[in-house]
Amino acid sequence: MSVNKFLYLAEEEIHSILGKDYQIVIDSVEDALKMMYEGTTIQPDKSSQIFDEKYQNRINCMPATLKRENTCGMKWVSVFPENKKNGLPNVEGIIVLSETNTGGVKCVLNATELTSLRTAGVGALAVKYLARKEANTIGFIGAGEEAKAHFKLIKFMQKDIKKCFVSSRTKKSVDTFIEELAPMYSDVEFINCENDYESAICDADIIVTAISSQEPVLKARWIKPGTLYIHVAGIEDEFAVARMASKIVCDCWEAVKHRKQTIVQMYNAGELKEEDIYADIYEIICGDKEGRESEGEFIYFNSVGLAVEDILLANRIYEKALELGKGIWINK
Amino acid sequence: MSVNKFLYLAEEEIHSILGKDYQIVIDSVEDALKMMYEGTTIQPDKSSQIFDEKYQNRINCMPATLKRENTCGMKWVSVFPENKKNGLPNVEGIIVLSETNTGGVKCVLNATELTSLRTAGVGALAVKYLARKEANTIGFIGAGEEAKAHFKLIKFMQKDIKKCFVSSRTKKSVDTFIEELAPMYSDVEFINCENDYESAICDADIIVTAISSQEPVLKARWIKPGTLYIHVAGIEDEFAVARMASKIVCDCWEAVKHRKQTIVQMYNAGELKEEDIYADIYEIICGDKEGRESEGEFIYFNSVGLAVEDILLANRIYEKALELGKGIWINK
Repeated sequence: MSVNKFLYLAEEEIHSILGKDYQIVIDSVEDALKMMYEGTTIQPDKSSQIFDEKYQNRINCMPATLKRENTCGMKWVSVFPENKKNGLPNVEGIIVLSETNTGGVKCVLNATELTSLRTAGVGALAVKYLARKEANTIGFIGAGEEAKAHFKLIKFMQKDIKKCFVSSRTKKSVDTFIEELAPMYSDVEFINCENDYESAICDADIIVTAISSQEPVLKARWIKPGTLYIHVAGIEDEFAVARMASKIVCDCWEAVKHRKQTIVQMYNAGELKEEDIYADIYEIICGDKEGRESEGEFIYFNSVGLAVEDILLANRIYEKALELGKGIWINK
Repeated sequence: MSVNKFLYLAEEEIHSILGKDYQIVIDSVEDALKMMYEGTTIQPDKSSQIFDEKYQNRINCMPATLKRENTCGMKWVSVFPENKKNGLPNVEGIIVLSETNTGGVKCVLNATELTSLRTAGVGALAVKYLARKEANTIGFIGAGEEAKAHFKLIKFMQKDIKKCFVSSRTKKSVDTFIEELAPMYSDVEFINCENDYESAICDADIIVTAISSQEPVLKARWIKPGTLYIHVAGIEDEFAVARMASKIVCDCWEAVKHRKQTIVQMYNAGELKEEDIYADIYEIICGDKEGRESEGEFIYFNSVGLAVEDILLANRIYEKALELGKGIWINK
């Protein structure tokens, strides 16, 4: 590669590089968390520029450095919840990767699919460390892109999944979820729960809420013992859900704390203390703390998404693109 | 333009769009400062990731939003002071521009030349508001890219400049400065002062220090009354220089305060107080405060560089590229 060029990877190209090789996504997320734990990363605060208070239309800027990879990068990603009504993507953005030995830009990538995959990758890691070994049912509230990505990555991690309950505010998105995924997973029974959230949850070993509603749609009384709950978006569960958890685990509580998820609302209201957070998941990955310790535990997992995950995944896709000769070279 | 594409502008293309039309640079910088003053911008803190404590090799991430332009952008720029020894650029980076009505990326631009031009543009604005009307000599300590850009923009602003004194640590960079610029400016006498800084300064109406040294090379006793001093880089002047100033003006003191320039060293050492800062330049541009009020004043100008300037200039170059059909369209 020339110092006067950088590689550009469009969304389709990234899609063709990754295919269904979700291992690279899960490994990248896990390795990024390990690097954070070992202290070989720099991760400045994410900055959010909000253009619309009502709809929270915003662009986030998430820089990070991975010293062991000689790579510094930045994800620039929009979140426009109302875009869907106009047929536009809710999330769009790009990632820039630079070398830390010269400062030169080496790659620019589309960040859209990569964002939903890495988020789901963290969910899949939570399944690896926190779900019951024999978990074989999953229930969704929310059926959009993020929910689909979670199904794919979690099924990749937990091959035994045999039943998938899906619910959402609109029947149409549940139909689409099942139409898209059922043909790809013939060993899974998909159950259309329409907007009956309780039916989607009450028999699930793994629960995922990925819904842009800011309401507590998930009720504690629906959840059976031994479940893992993966909380993806903002506020989707009543306070009682976290209250009944045996363990609350975050990707990084220090980062979560500055966001607006349910447990942060509880923390700010004085209904949850720092010490109620059992662990950050990298403490479990790295063996400092136990993951699941008994069949009956209900474990609550909350992730916020970390720039180190984006940058390591992007860098591995870049390296794979070099190997495969994919992407277009652009003169600086 | 399609929602599935963005425009890429390489350095050469930007160069061909701008040519010597420095008006667009100066207007962009002035308008960006006005927008900041009127409160129609968002400008999160710049974040700096430092890879090498000794040489301060780093990448800066500078986001900003210009509400009136429906544009949100980010400059990603490396500063690797030691790169020159290996024949690599000291500064390299890219700018991303997104629309604030959809969140979509609309343009990516090379940021290298744009960075040095906008920095020099702020210097030229300082000349417009703070130099004596009849200033016709300029003296440089430092003769690199930033010094050259300052000469070009200041000469564009102050047509009367007739004499240019140039000094630097190395004879070679002074020679190069003069070889490059003398043929373009036949009405200017260039005087090679080699590394004799005093000779470069003592007869100058406008002084520019743009040198990566972290030493106080500029001495107060060399400066004559009525001068404007433009401080570009880190620490290039002794404390006595700021002490003898009639007015100290910044681009934005709130931003300067968190950096490491001379006046910040003085501030941190308790040798300069907030109230010793006369004004931010946008207060002068917008008429809240007077600029130069007498022939004899020695005015000290310190800029730090603001993301709003980069983003507005980049957006105007993007609009000009659309008009001229320049750049390449890239599928997202």
